[in-house]
Amino acid sequence: MWLRRAVARSQPGYVSLKGGAVKQVLALSGGVGGAKLSLGLERVLPAGALHVLVNTGDDFTHLGLHISPDIDTVLYTLAGRANQAQGWGLEGESWNTMEAMALLDGETWFRLGDRDIATHLWRRSQLDAGQDLAAVTQDLARRMGVKSHIYPMCRETVRTVVHTDEGDLPFQHYFVRRQCEPRVRSFEFEGLAAARPDPDVLALLASDDLGHIVVCPSNPFVSIDPVLQVPGMWQALRDHAAPVILVSPIVDGMAIKGPAAKMMAELRVPVTAAGVARHYAERYPDLVDHFLIDDSDAKLTDEINRLGLNAVCTATVMTTLEDKMRLARTCLSLEM
Amino acid sequence: MWLRRAVARSQPGYVSLKGGAVKQVLALSGGVGGAKLSLGLERVLPAGALHVLVNTGDDFTHLGLHISPDIDTVLYTLAGRANQAQGWGLEGESWNTMEAMALLDGETWFRLGDRDIATHLWRRSQLDAGQDLAAVTQDLARRMGVKSHIYPMCRETVRTVVHTDEGDLPFQHYFVRRQCEPRVRSFEFEGLAAARPDPDVLALLASDDLGHIVVCPSNPFVSIDPVLQVPGMWQALRDHAAPVILVSPIVDGMAIKGPAAKMMAELRVPVTAAGVARHYAERYPDLVDHFLIDDSDAKLTDEINRLGLNAVCTATVMTTLEDKMRLARTCLSLEM
Repeated sequence: MWLRRAVARSQPGYVSLKGGAVKQVLALSGGVGGAKLSLGLERVLPAGALHVLVNTGDDFTHLGLHISPDIDTVLYTLAGRANQAQGWGLEGESWNTMEAMALLDGETWFRLGDRDIATHLWRRSQLDAGQDLAAVTQDLARRMGVKSHIYPMCRETVRTVVHTDEGDLPFQHYFVRRQCEPRVRSFEFEGLAAARPDPDVLALLASDDLGHIVVCPSNPFVSIDPVLQVPGMWQALRDHAAPVILVSPIVDGMAIKGPAAKMMAELRVPVTAAGVARHYAERYPDLVDHFLIDDSDAKLTDEINRLGLNAVCTATVMTTLEDKMRLARTCLSLEM
Repeated sequence: MWLRRAVARSQPGYVSLKGGAVKQVLALSGGVGGAKLSLGLERVLPAGALHVLVNTGDDFTHLGLHISPDIDTVLYTLAGRANQAQGWGLEGESWNTMEAMALLDGETWFRLGDRDIATHLWRRSQLDAGQDLAAVTQDLARRMGVKSHIYPMCRETVRTVVHTDEGDLPFQHYFVRRQCEPRVRSFEFEGLAAARPDPDVLALLASDDLGHIVVCPSNPFVSIDPVLQVPGMWQALRDHAAPVILVSPIVDGMAIKGPAAKMMAELRVPVTAAGVARHYAERYPDLVDHFLIDDSDAKLTDEINRLGLNAVCTATVMTTLEDKMRLARTCLSLEM
């Protein structure tokens, strides 16, 4: 693998970002954390140079709608319409459909905002008309004025099931309905064996136009694992000449957002950036080149380096847009 | 037919409303006009004695939702939640989903209110779960606190197509999108030949508990014709002992609401209550016993009587709830 990369880098036409010319960037993303870094990447790259490959294991059918929570978080974030305080959904959202659903004694545990519902209705109607999720996602991005390319991790249906001490739960039932309360034993991605990487993403990987691969600070177990475990996916990323840069979702022993830390504790993985590094090193050997950890975790550098990942300390917590852009620039400054 | 009715009336157990005991009432309804009289009937009958058989030829799939406009108008009206000024939809409605749909450059010609969407989402999810439209309608009525029984005209899919001088149009495209502008040549009810009357309605007709059949002042061509033309339906109504009372949707040469008058003109039917009477007399011989026309149309009495319908003059325009209840009482005062 390292040899292939060295060969690829020596080919004519490969120009690093440092060299001035800009190549394409592929980001792997779940929801909020991934969307934040994707926004930073988009803002420091020329329009259209960012490609975001998004987890769809969280997708589910609810009230007849096809809900793609991670895709929508990325779409809304890149469209500048995300509700940042809430961490999901649209800014300035209203909840009249849910109120009426409550009057019907219908299901309201998964809160669908009135404006958000337009997205789901559009997606549903396009899927019903025979479009696949990749085409619908591309169409939605265009309609929202998003210049980056957003891809579902695959076009097949994959559903994350959480094996817990209270039995098996579909992901959204675990995550939203049960608020991650049951203890996690393991995860299963139903349908994953029959999935294949998005052809457009494979074409990007084959084109040699790709300069960097960024694994965003999303949940390793339920956001990034499904993307990487689409058959052939992580190997294709590993074998590409571009450096793979992973950003830690764990900072100072805590997850910035979501249940990653709680899951790690329940899976008896150390709740540290080093625990994250070990997960990637064991599950995806030689995939990750650089592992960005927060300055507050500098003490873990040696431990991470021993796992074969090159630890890079920086400020990884993204609060402002400037934080996101600075972290994006750091990612893109790293070479093999 | 007349003989069978006479026999039926002489059977023990048949007690007229005048006699004090209350039997069940079956109303045939389209949208607004039918819902108004249904509300009047409900208010003058004991809880649960009203059965409303509703046109579903206007139903359509839109943005992945199953929309049943006439059923919803009846449901919302009987639930006391109809937007009376607008003539459709819910009172106090908001339009945020449609605004967001417009931002997506999606379809907004059929206005779906935020609260209304909850009904459609619930219906969609229940249909997807394998319930039929009759069960879902019954369930929605219960959830809205409606005590009357509401039935789709059949459980099969029937779609009204309007043959116009601009070609064939699905009903809602003619009615809403094109605002009834194209000239009508004829109507077709796709799927009707394979439909059959709702089994619960047939059971009601077979039970001898039915005291009156009321054909509400809905559009004869696109609201009542589809209901009556479900194979076997109008003959079953004709053969029942209960009197069939038709209320004219045309008053003084005009339709109270909707395109009935325009359609009659384009179909070269006189735009009068007599024109309505002729339509029923020719298409459904011996079905209608009494034809309620507005006092303003008293001059048409002889013409209507000659068609074999017994014209009854009364105030048929329903503005207030009292109007609706008075018209309902007049309907229920009529015997064979």
